[in-house]
Amino acid sequence: MSEEIHDVVIVGSGVAGHSAAIYAARADFEPVVYTGEDPGGQLTLTTDVENFLGFPDGVSGTELVQNGRKQAESFGARYEHRTIVDADLSERPFTLELNNGDTVTTRGLIIATGASARWVGAENEDAMMGYGLSTCATCDGAFHRGNDVLVVGGGDSAMEEALFLTKFAETVYIVHRREELRASEIMARRAEENEDIEFLWNTELVAIEGSRDEGVQGAKLVRHPEGHPTERMENGEGVEEIDFDCSGIFYAIGHTPNTEFLEDTPIALDEDGYIETESGMTTETGIEGVFAAGDVMDRDYQQAITAAGTGSMAALDLEEWLDAQEESATAETAPAAAD
Amino acid sequence: MSEEIHDVVIVGSGVAGHSAAIYAARADFEPVVYTGEDPGGQLTLTTDVENFLGFPDGVSGTELVQNGRKQAESFGARYEHRTIVDADLSERPFTLELNNGDTVTTRGLIIATGASARWVGAENEDAMMGYGLSTCATCDGAFHRGNDVLVVGGGDSAMEEALFLTKFAETVYIVHRREELRASEIMARRAEENEDIEFLWNTELVAIEGSRDEGVQGAKLVRHPEGHPTERMENGEGVEEIDFDCSGIFYAIGHTPNTEFLEDTPIALDEDGYIETESGMTTETGIEGVFAAGDVMDRDYQQAITAAGTGSMAALDLEEWLDAQEESATAETAPAAAD
Repeated sequence: MSEEIHDVVIVGSGVAGHSAAIYAARADFEPVVYTGEDPGGQLTLTTDVENFLGFPDGVSGTELVQNGRKQAESFGARYEHRTIVDADLSERPFTLELNNGDTVTTRGLIIATGASARWVGAENEDAMMGYGLSTCATCDGAFHRGNDVLVVGGGDSAMEEALFLTKFAETVYIVHRREELRASEIMARRAEENEDIEFLWNTELVAIEGSRDEGVQGAKLVRHPEGHPTERMENGEGVEEIDFDCSGIFYAIGHTPNTEFLEDTPIALDEDGYIETESGMTTETGIEGVFAAGDVMDRDYQQAITAAGTGSMAALDLEEWLDAQEESATAETAPAAAD
Repeated sequence: MSEEIHDVVIVGSGVAGHSAAIYAARADFEPVVYTGEDPGGQLTLTTDVENFLGFPDGVSGTELVQNGRKQAESFGARYEHRTIVDADLSERPFTLELNNGDTVTTRGLIIATGASARWVGAENEDAMMGYGLSTCATCDGAFHRGNDVLVVGGGDSAMEEALFLTKFAETVYIVHRREELRASEIMARRAEENEDIEFLWNTELVAIEGSRDEGVQGAKLVRHPEGHPTERMENGEGVEEIDFDCSGIFYAIGHTPNTEFLEDTPIALDEDGYIETESGMTTETGIEGVFAAGDVMDRDYQQAITAAGTGSMAALDLEEWLDAQEESATAETAPAAAD
């Protein structure tokens, strides 16, 4: 085979992938980045990023990832708008299969595929996603000027989405299955003090009304005064049903790591599909030559700045590993040189 | 005692401290940051930072840390230009002694005091640090494409820096005061076998030539065939003086973590004085309520972007710990409320 073997392939183009690419490119490894379907990752779904060190006036998520890519490209990183659909990591060099059928061969691999927003499982959501149903307030909030919208979730990102939506919507209703938020105090207080936000406690979304032509027309909700209404329904308990008028529904209930393509590989995944890295501050997976960075290996923090940090760590870990490989290859081919 | 008890005190004002302050302040913990003697940390010793994600045209080290501080202050962090000289971490709340004799009391503590690169003591080094003189090849190597550079040191990190610099420099000269390296055999062999690396044995750097406008123009070296030339000079022995042309000088004689004030505390330090954190991706030290971030706990990577990442991790870890403390305090005072 005369096919080119890369030193460094990076899968994923959120902040972790870009940061890894900046480091690998500055170290002259000419990394190739496969962006995946959604270049830029989760950060492109937010507006203002206030907590990424270096930007006292904040920075837009889109700008931050675009800057990261520009920075990596300026040092020689190459970006390809392709998705990895399968990976053979059982022998080195590794072989990756792209969504156009091509295969790619590489000595070192950095997985930075991130985690994607989760769906509720309500009736009609497949049909309505993108037609009034959204996982991204930033992208779709402006379609709901003067109307009422629902946000599903109780964590920081649900509060953030709801607060953002008050710019457009008449009233933002937060649907939460318990009576207590998982969000941080500051975010919870901000949402609770905002007069354009109302909370629907102990309530869950079960169906979305509307059609692709007309968009979302409403929602069917269920409520139980002690919380977790759908669980109670399944146990045969009675719950209150509510028909709710709204023009938009936003999901903000967490994320699933993008590791489907690793299912048949020896990479260790935890019960939720996150990549398990070796113990200590490292990006090493159990497989030599494969490193992981960003949300796909960091379920606890999932911040832009931590993803950028682990991205650079992955590139440095991979550099060190490649250097050691080269060393042992040299030693093998020239044993007489050893003293 | 009516003295105020803080929730969050952060010791150190490099990127790790600022990033921790941004997160702790946004979470409404009103953190107090004690800057130490050298506000801004190691990053203030570099000029252009090219590998911190988000700045495609680079950013000056000073600007980056100033921005970080401004950002933290905008969310309510308070900065004090004081140094912690002693700490009593044997009971909570913790007590810290400042260099002006005051004491400070806090429930939660983030240690982000960094590690200082050791300096050689050559003439002109204060003026030239960041202007061609550097303590970080990863950061500044790319500025020396096609030129000759000096690396000062004889340990593993000196070999590593030298090997990395061969990607860019025409020839890398390693200046070492003896004829034998302190580096591990494998690292020494890698450097010795590399044809772009030359060793200047029994040699020491005594002065740096150049100016801030022109950058480093050369070095004054001394040599003695039996090693340790500067010691011999001081003893009145004759040494050979060498004027050496080069565009960059890299100090690689190690870092010293800034943990002297922790010596009598139960915080676990490794043999070189770095804080040992618990296993896994965490900033927890062995002492509840005390977290560590940045170079003081990360001897392997020591990058600005990783320090910013671990800073945010420390604040999130501390937040979670404080919330849990508050919750258990509430549970104690109102046991009937538990269900």
